[in-house]
Amino acid sequence: MPSDVPPGSGAPVAIDGGLLSPVTVGHDALVADDAVLTALLGAEAALTRAWARVGVAPDAAATAVSEALTGDPGWLDAAPIARAAVAGGNPVIPLVRAAKERVPGEVRIWVHRGATSQDILDTALMTTSRAAGAQIVRSLARVEAALAALASAHRDDVSAARTLTQHAVPTTLGARAASWLRGVTRARARLAGVLDTLPAQLGGAGGTLASFVEIGGADAAAALPAAFADEVGLATPDAPWHVERWPVTELGDALVQVVDALGRLAGDVATGSRTEIGEFAEGTGGGSSAMPQKQNPAASVLVRSAALRAPQLAATLHLAAALAVDERPDGAWHAEWPTLRDLLRLALGASGSAASLAEGLRAFPVRAAEILRADPLIIAERLSIVLAPVLGADEVARIVSAAGAGGDLRQLVVDALEAAVDRAPGAPHPSDGVDALLDPANYTGAAAALVDRAVRAAGPTTPEET
Amino acid sequence: MPSDVPPGSGAPVAIDGGLLSPVTVGHDALVADDAVLTALLGAEAALTRAWARVGVAPDAAATAVSEALTGDPGWLDAAPIARAAVAGGNPVIPLVRAAKERVPGEVRIWVHRGATSQDILDTALMTTSRAAGAQIVRSLARVEAALAALASAHRDDVSAARTLTQHAVPTTLGARAASWLRGVTRARARLAGVLDTLPAQLGGAGGTLASFVEIGGADAAAALPAAFADEVGLATPDAPWHVERWPVTELGDALVQVVDALGRLAGDVATGSRTEIGEFAEGTGGGSSAMPQKQNPAASVLVRSAALRAPQLAATLHLAAALAVDERPDGAWHAEWPTLRDLLRLALGASGSAASLAEGLRAFPVRAAEILRADPLIIAERLSIVLAPVLGADEVARIVSAAGAGGDLRQLVVDALEAAVDRAPGAPHPSDGVDALLDPANYTGAAAALVDRAVRAAGPTTPEET
Amino acid sequence: MPSDVPPGSGAPVAIDGGLLSPVTVGHDALVADDAVLTALLGAEAALTRAWARVGVAPDAAATAVSEALTGDPGWLDAAPIARAAVAGGNPVIPLVRAAKERVPGEVRIWVHRGATSQDILDTALMTTSRAAGAQIVRSLARVEAALAALASAHRDDVSAARTLTQHAVPTTLGARAASWLRGVTRARARLAGVLDTLPAQLGGAGGTLASFVEIGGADAAAALPAAFADEVGLATPDAPWHVERWPVTELGDALVQVVDALGRLAGDVATGSRTEIGEFAEGTGGGSSAMPQKQNPAASVLVRSAALRAPQLAATLHLAAALAVDERPDGAWHAEWPTLRDLLRLALGASGSAASLAEGLRAFPVRAAEILRADPLIIAERLSIVLAPVLGADEVARIVSAAGAGGDLRQLVVDALEAAVDRAPGAPHPSDGVDALLDPANYTGAAAALVDRAVRAAGPTTPEET
Amino acid sequence: MPSDVPPGSGAPVAIDGGLLSPVTVGHDALVADDAVLTALLGAEAALTRAWARVGVAPDAAATAVSEALTGDPGWLDAAPIARAAVAGGNPVIPLVRAAKERVPGEVRIWVHRGATSQDILDTALMTTSRAAGAQIVRSLARVEAALAALASAHRDDVSAARTLTQHAVPTTLGARAASWLRGVTRARARLAGVLDTLPAQLGGAGGTLASFVEIGGADAAAALPAAFADEVGLATPDAPWHVERWPVTELGDALVQVVDALGRLAGDVATGSRTEIGEFAEGTGGGSSAMPQKQNPAASVLVRSAALRAPQLAATLHLAAALAVDERPDGAWHAEWPTLRDLLRLALGASGSAASLAEGLRAFPVRAAEILRADPLIIAERLSIVLAPVLGADEVARIVSAAGAGGDLRQLVVDALEAAVDRAPGAPHPSDGVDALLDPANYTGAAAALVDRAVRAAGPTTPEET
Repeated sequence: MPSDVPPGSGAPVAIDGGLLSPVTVGHDALVADDAVLTALLGAEAALTRAWARVGVAPDAAATAVSEALTGDPGWLDAAPIARAAVAGGNPVIPLVRAAKERVPGEVRIWVHRGATSQDILDTALMTTSRAAGAQIVRSLARVEAALAALASAHRDDVSAARTLTQHAVPTTLGARAASWLRGVTRARARLAGVLDTLPAQLGGAGGTLASFVEIGGADAAAALPAAFADEVGLATPDAPWHVERWPVTELGDALVQVVDALGRLAGDVATGSRTEIGEFAEGTGGGSSAMPQKQNPAASVLVRSAALRAPQLAATLHLAAALAVDERPDGAWHAEWPTLRDLLRLALGASGSAASLAEGLRAFPVRAAEILRADPLIIAERLSIVLAPVLGADEVARIVSAAGAGGDLRQLVVDALEAAVDRAPGAPHPSDGVDALLDPANYTGAAAALVDRAVRAAGPTTPEET
Repeated sequence: MPSDVPPGSGAPVAIDGGLLSPVTVGHDALVADDAVLTALLGAEAALTRAWARVGVAPDAAATAVSEALTGDPGWLDAAPIARAAVAGGNPVIPLVRAAKERVPGEVRIWVHRGATSQDILDTALMTTSRAAGAQIVRSLARVEAALAALASAHRDDVSAARTLTQHAVPTTLGARAASWLRGVTRARARLAGVLDTLPAQLGGAGGTLASFVEIGGADAAAALPAAFADEVGLATPDAPWHVERWPVTELGDALVQVVDALGRLAGDVATGSRTEIGEFAEGTGGGSSAMPQKQNPAASVLVRSAALRAPQLAATLHLAAALAVDERPDGAWHAEWPTLRDLLRLALGASGSAASLAEGLRAFPVRAAEILRADPLIIAERLSIVLAPVLGADEVARIVSAAGAGGDLRQLVVDALEAAVDRAPGAPHPSDGVDALLDPANYTGAAAALVDRAVRAAGPTTPEET
Repeated sequence: MPSDVPPGSGAPVAIDGGLLSPVTVGHDALVADDAVLTALLGAEAALTRAWARVGVAPDAAATAVSEALTGDPGWLDAAPIARAAVAGGNPVIPLVRAAKERVPGEVRIWVHRGATSQDILDTALMTTSRAAGAQIVRSLARVEAALAALASAHRDDVSAARTLTQHAVPTTLGARAASWLRGVTRARARLAGVLDTLPAQLGGAGGTLASFVEIGGADAAAALPAAFADEVGLATPDAPWHVERWPVTELGDALVQVVDALGRLAGDVATGSRTEIGEFAEGTGGGSSAMPQKQNPAASVLVRSAALRAPQLAATLHLAAALAVDERPDGAWHAEWPTLRDLLRLALGASGSAASLAEGLRAFPVRAAEILRADPLIIAERLSIVLAPVLGADEVARIVSAAGAGGDLRQLVVDALEAAVDRAPGAPHPSDGVDALLDPANYTGAAAALVDRAVRAAGPTTPEET
Repeated sequence: MPSDVPPGSGAPVAIDGGLLSPVTVGHDALVADDAVLTALLGAEAALTRAWARVGVAPDAAATAVSEALTGDPGWLDAAPIARAAVAGGNPVIPLVRAAKERVPGEVRIWVHRGATSQDILDTALMTTSRAAGAQIVRSLARVEAALAALASAHRDDVSAARTLTQHAVPTTLGARAASWLRGVTRARARLAGVLDTLPAQLGGAGGTLASFVEIGGADAAAALPAAFADEVGLATPDAPWHVERWPVTELGDALVQVVDALGRLAGDVATGSRTEIGEFAEGTGGGSSAMPQKQNPAASVLVRSAALRAPQLAATLHLAAALAVDERPDGAWHAEWPTLRDLLRLALGASGSAASLAEGLRAFPVRAAEILRADPLIIAERLSIVLAPVLGADEVARIVSAAGAGGDLRQLVVDALEAAVDRAPGAPHPSDGVDALLDPANYTGAAAALVDRAVRAAGPTTPEET
């Protein structure tokens, strides 16, 4: 350990271990400080191997550096590096010092060779993001599988569609689940697409690759970014992106879209779990410290809490991108690091929590039907369409109004039709179809087809396939 | 005009005509209230034509409704519609009333047939977005053409790369312009891609298309969304997206990425225009009410002001997406409308302003070179790479330190090399290459290649081609 | 009109007249472009009068300038000023030109004398804010009066308290209204307090007041800010605040707190209006274009839409404040103007809409009681407290569990108490108090006292008093 | 440890120990998970003591509970509590179980007596906030003391005022420091004021205090909140604020105002540290991994990174406040916890970092004067004021223009005055005062007075007094 790293136990400092963010607890190890530290060391080791692949560094140096930096994952503690990062504003500076001390003297020159701190830190954030993103994709596949099953199971179970809090027309429980599913499928596809584009960073101090050219010559320097990217498992950058932060913002956008889609699921479950509604319930509700009878939709509450936080984190990433002046800005880049990590963490937590939520989610079609029975006017729109040509719009409005005031809708319709048919004696009795007309199950339009289509379009139903 | 639209002059109410947002003035007509109103009427007309295309409405009805609603663009004023929208919270409600009054009685039934307000409003926001987006793409193509020319012209003009406000290593003015260019190219491509995916909205009151099925039968209803989308020039929706707001958030993300990229250009121009730097100047600086000598980078200031606002607007769109509960939420959808319009407006303004800015932008290579001459240590990194193997790292550090304290860098290097060569008599005089070693122009790495690549990758250099 | 103001009709350009933000329509005239233009002219006139008050300008000049600039409010159109503002990035530059052309030549020198654009623009934004803020305060007083009446009327009407969407314990409709009321009262008091601190701006080009000292001497210059502030009806600034933006952010914070408090009211009304709940209804619900029977909580939906937008606008103000570098920043100040106006507009709209909402709000205690009857276990917490000492915690848990599974709670309690009393013969029959024990109305704690306190603490119940 | 707390080492889980946020490292122990856990236990202990103070609980119970829960600060590990919090979404639930297990059986009933989780968690967040806030206030007092000294030391050192990146008029280094100082003083005063208002939370499950009334009777329950608040060192709440979140948002607003003020200081230092400007330098600049000569304004960069993040966190708090429906909302409350902690942490870090920054900050008046000499036209405004009455505005404009084109300003002015005086023979030679006229030091207006006033208004110069 270099002397300027403050002494100390090296024990992790749990400023934030999740006590205040239960939505992420148990899902966030991939983005913990230790994981980032490992990614930083991995990037340094990969750079040395890349130098060897382009024929500049001896293979033995690459092997020695890789072994020293990544052979024993626990050799470097995050806490002293974090403390030593303050002076230079950057954890890579003390990490490079520690790394150079650790490797054999004869290969020391190949550590961080030609690189600037940003090359290593950006690359490590991208590898961390890729690993976390893959985990998020896996969790989303679980969500999709569960929602597809739910949508299929309740494909034809009628329920009230609600707009602006009010019953509107019928829909199905399956159609609602299919809507969640479509959102998750789209968000997963977008995230997966972004993950494939995440580039390694390699530009040197001013983004010109001058140091790499000086060290290895123009040809080797030109080949180096691809070799480095391959070593870390990232896309080859078109150019250094020190101040072109689209890899960060496009990732951030995709992550917030994931959380949005899950937030909507959670919001609908929370609403559907209301004591007065009861169309949905989480498999295992959260208890209460004071009220033993309560079954709270705890997972939904947690996922919603994530959904309220994520958009503003993504906004910070965009601000940082927009303010990336010069060849490295005076604050914007630094603002990205914890923000991107928090956003990854929220998406990990929300997707992990949502997977459990979706897998345990119960829908109650009997209760949904009961709710519909209490509101026969939910098919008022249908009455307008079907009866207005027969009875006139004014008469339909009168019927709806009378039913809204407590009248029996079926009787009102039958009476009106009979009055109308009186004007056309001999016609078949018009009330024959009234029960069917008033049945919400007959006014769900394309709901079933929408379910089928969403289920077909959903991701692989076994996470292993992703 | 229906009786419930409050009487009044109908003159536009300029709550916001741009007095407080000069960055958008002159660029925002495509998203003005009048344009939105035209889009709403266009959506209503298109729906009627779509009914005709699927064989349900008479062609004559479609023609009559289209002619009535869109034949005379000025027939309906936005102001009374805006006022009448308050009661129902929605401008489509009074617009439909006005539209029904305007069309001949016999085709009135085909106005808004089966639709819900959201079908029309969402579709109109998407057609408005598509038109505005196309204009943004055109402006970005202008920005790219100008930046490509600038980057090529200054491809080899050396300048100081600055990181954390300090000189770091040399770069070129062209490399800086190429970095802006890459950001704009990427943002334009992403926006263009998103525009092609923007879907029409058609779901009916509960998102099940039940009304359309009831009216036209299952087959016609199934064909209706594609017909409608084609009539309005949007993508066919996979499904109603009343509460799956990815079309809005993906558009918002792409717009903020556009503004980010332009904000970075503006930030660098503003910084480079600083009185003490003077590497860049806008073609026509803004004046001052008090200081006649000032030439402010006014366009950059305005574009930067947009960049500070856009991310938070995009965050609002994500929040609205995440909170879209039920089949239509109780506030989230309404929060989208003005926010999306503002974001479109900012992107229109920022891209239009940036086009002028980029086209008039002047770079000053002589001044850039002067700045470099005042800082010979800008090649300190190169000294470390080249001289450390010869002189040892400690000696290089001593030279840098002495030069930093005011010593003559060239002399320090020559002396050190001579002292070293004394130890190897007969070798060629080591100082022969010192001038070349110290010349920043020889330490720009892949800058020229990065310029060439960015220029090749840029969009069509004539906006007409886009 | 000066020659550089582009010719044109001068008709207001309604980029945004409210078509997409029904929550603000009819409430936002005080912050419209025309109002801001009037405020700008008012600030210019006030500056001339201030120069006269400190004995530097002739009184006749002050009178002539004031008359010319403010005598006929319609003399200057906003649209051409907005267009001419683009070049310099600032509407004050063309406005000053127009003002100088309008005043008699002999007093022209006193127009904008010594000032910088920011002095006028900041001052005008503050006078606009003060007027808008006063209107918001008046609307909030209306909200408070209505909520106080509602809380008092339903002071003792029992209702289910809901936490995490689930019934928790009893509360009262009045207690819920009192909670809204407290939030509004606090927000109004804070806003009113902030309004009194809003300062005029006067610093000159660099914030040193050098021009004013040069023109009028040190003593007159020292007296000028207070005179100016008095003329415009604002607080005297401690110092120029060109880059100390607390007046803007503190105002923004207070405005968003207002919208928060109203958003909560709206959210509870929207929830309480749900078809399945029905404890609240707006006086006049919004209709639907498709479903005649719906009564949407339209005002609540609109107020909620404002609440989703306001926080991000306030964040932009803070970002602008934090990024106010130099003596006037390169974008941050410009980002403030439209953002502050939008935030004022939202608060005007939300408070105006909420006043109507609150005044028309209906609570339904019979329905609230019905909901409670369907959930006898809502007093489970009380059972734990009262019965556990008698029966033991395990027995209470058993009773709750059995009742939750469908058992008759009253009978379960009575049986358990009788079983217990069997162990203490001769004691009074324990079931005597069971009905009272199980009555939710007996478990509302301090709800009534909380109502009374909130009503007493509320603002003046007649807006005139504010 | 209760059995449902998962077994494990209990070692802190350093998801975030600061590796990615150097601005907070070393400043954030007061808001670490352990500190929050201690605050939660402290709130539980205080509640028991409050019950004793109002005469309901035995004093011995209060003593026993306090001793058990707070006597040994390390008895409970945060990590297993965090893990066990997931199921119920709330760390208080497992904490209460652990606490009940730890206290002697006979006093167990007094643990968490009558309380709901939110009472404890909100109270603990407030005590945590108060402690952190006090630390922030102390750091700000250090900033103020340093800035006051700096402003005084450079009270009369002339420097260029810059607006929109361009030189405007002269100011002084002291005036710039005074501007920072005023911002910090105001932010500190506001935060200190808010800290005094932070209330304890006590409402019971539904915010009615029903449980407390049931347990202790109405009088004791009425006295309990004040006793509880006194025990935890917070303000007595007017009423339960479970869903009236002004304590959180007003605190958040004050914290972001603190970070804004520091961000502006940091932004100006970063700008003033630019290689080409050099008017300011941090006492100890950050190094670089690649460029040994660089002295980065590392502390400024870090503080600025905080300033870019804080506003969006405060926005999340407002959103959570606005969305606090029911008697406890389904996600909004949970979104607050980590957000408030992050905001406190940023303010702790920014203020701690800024204290070091300000104490080490060096201003360079010689360089500032050199910059002014290179721009004689910086007094152009003064020329307009002084010379226009003598020479006419057109002639002044000609002089400024000629000087801007490279002419010698002094000679231009002298020539013009001589030409004018030729028209008035016998008058004193007008050029006598030209040097004084052109000297920027004579055009700093009230700069010195503004410095003196800001220094007088600043906080106590020794942190101990705060």
